[in-house]
Amino acid sequence: MRGLYFDGKLQYREDIPMPKMEKDESLIKILYAGICNTDKEILKGYKKFTGILGHEFVGIVEDSTDKNLIGKRIVGEINIGCYQCEFCKEGLYNHCYDRKVLGMIGKDGVFADYITLPNNNIHIVPEGVSNLEAVFAEPLSAALEITEMFHIKPKHRVAIIGDGKLGQLIAQVLSLTACDLTIIGKHLQKLNLVKDKGKVALIDELKINKYFDVVVDCTGNEQGLIVAGEIVKPKGTIILKSTYNSNTVLNPTNWVVNEVNILGSRCGPMDAALRIMERKLFSADGLIDEICSLKDYEKAFDRKAGKVIFDLKMD
Amino acid sequence: MRGLYFDGKLQYREDIPMPKMEKDESLIKILYAGICNTDKEILKGYKKFTGILGHEFVGIVEDSTDKNLIGKRIVGEINIGCYQCEFCKEGLYNHCYDRKVLGMIGKDGVFADYITLPNNNIHIVPEGVSNLEAVFAEPLSAALEITEMFHIKPKHRVAIIGDGKLGQLIAQVLSLTACDLTIIGKHLQKLNLVKDKGKVALIDELKINKYFDVVVDCTGNEQGLIVAGEIVKPKGTIILKSTYNSNTVLNPTNWVVNEVNILGSRCGPMDAALRIMERKLFSADGLIDEICSLKDYEKAFDRKAGKVIFDLKMD
Repeated sequence: MRGLYFDGKLQYREDIPMPKMEKDESLIKILYAGICNTDKEILKGYKKFTGILGHEFVGIVEDSTDKNLIGKRIVGEINIGCYQCEFCKEGLYNHCYDRKVLGMIGKDGVFADYITLPNNNIHIVPEGVSNLEAVFAEPLSAALEITEMFHIKPKHRVAIIGDGKLGQLIAQVLSLTACDLTIIGKHLQKLNLVKDKGKVALIDELKINKYFDVVVDCTGNEQGLIVAGEIVKPKGTIILKSTYNSNTVLNPTNWVVNEVNILGSRCGPMDAALRIMERKLFSADGLIDEICSLKDYEKAFDRKAGKVIFDLKMD
Repeated sequence: MRGLYFDGKLQYREDIPMPKMEKDESLIKILYAGICNTDKEILKGYKKFTGILGHEFVGIVEDSTDKNLIGKRIVGEINIGCYQCEFCKEGLYNHCYDRKVLGMIGKDGVFADYITLPNNNIHIVPEGVSNLEAVFAEPLSAALEITEMFHIKPKHRVAIIGDGKLGQLIAQVLSLTACDLTIIGKHLQKLNLVKDKGKVALIDELKINKYFDVVVDCTGNEQGLIVAGEIVKPKGTIILKSTYNSNTVLNPTNWVVNEVNILGSRCGPMDAALRIMERKLFSADGLIDEICSLKDYEKAFDRKAGKVIFDLKMD
């Protein structure tokens, strides 16, 4: 089968063996797959991964040990717990220290014709949800992990720092809470995409209305947490979504003096993502910049901004 | 009156003018006053304070605009809000950006014969509580701010990192929650003082039972948060009590991946501190290393560890 294989260098190959379904697993034909910033971090050495990249997808179950899944259009959770350790026993599969992660840790990913996945990880896509919406199920779950972890109230003053792909999804999710939302970024063009979700502000102009109850950092770099600390209210909450491969100089004494709450937040509830898609509360409009074939991977990975989706039906 | 005055250099003086009571204030004669680590940080330049040091005390109201307070034995909250700003209007006086802080910011402290304090800041000490217990009301409130901010459950596995003065008080407070408590420190002698509150462990021996639901850092230095990040469970909580005058190199990506919650925690509820004193749930036994006169301030401030209390009745 075809696939994008990484072993220090990213290659397009057509000679990759089909993955083999194991116990309690399904074989899934990929329809569409999205490139995430984490994929780009892996190319820089993050997680030291070797194998087929990619973890955002929508596909069709071709074969399964659960016959009810065969033929279904599905999306899938990316963390595969060991089901043995103390964290798995508490239901914290996403935090199992022996977990595999699709296209990231010990498990081939979705930039290929086929993958296998445990049946437990699979969610059937509701009828009214399109393929190009469903391919956002994974990052939209990550956005929903914010409201899963923390109670954002309608009267909260909330800032999102970062106008990139994840920032756009978070803006969609947080706007649903009716909170007083400001999206702060560096790019007027991207901020324009979310101006119906709340106020928008260029980061350099941020002089008014400084103190937010909640600040979400999804800048993807170490500046996010520093700016968040400057604009969050005493006793306010900073929600961290940025992952990057470096250390940062910080001043934790300020968090103590201002009694700030910092919450790390990663993968979220995929069933909830499908529910808001089905309820037409999510829109992929303006989020996709390019749809291309796996063969065009070099151009696809070179794009600085915007979402690129691989269409596996394309040659 | 007598007092310890700091203006870059700490001096004992007998020529300090009596403080003047203002509107809604009381004049308080100090009985006992405790030295806190923060006082030592101020000597190193923290808060750039000039004036009379000290904020932990028990005293007698000599005069007051509230006649019911006169003659009463009292302790006092150290933060004095402006009562005008948006934070004060929400009741966040402790976080007012224009606040005065007793012996720290714009307000002379308690290492003196007399202070003044707003009546709102004053709490009457219950009868059964001794003076040498009451002098711990302020740091004990800071320990209670942990349970005020965060729900520690009886089944939680909790670690306190730091066996110093604040660590001892926090051990007393958290042991009351019935949680599975471990106090981690560097000094066997200090750990022995709290071995009836939970398990104790030297930091170097910390190899078993690694993952705690809650980790409290009261080391007073930047290592505390780093160690806390290593021993806290995924989705666990780190409560930060350490304040110090420096930046630290940290890796926030780990907090995101492990979805860790970090809570800064400072001053707490003084009425609650008096309640647990009255209920005999707090003990000052073993906490006081020396009681001395103001004149002995040099020796008192030179002590590396242990609590020193000034007895203002002494010459």
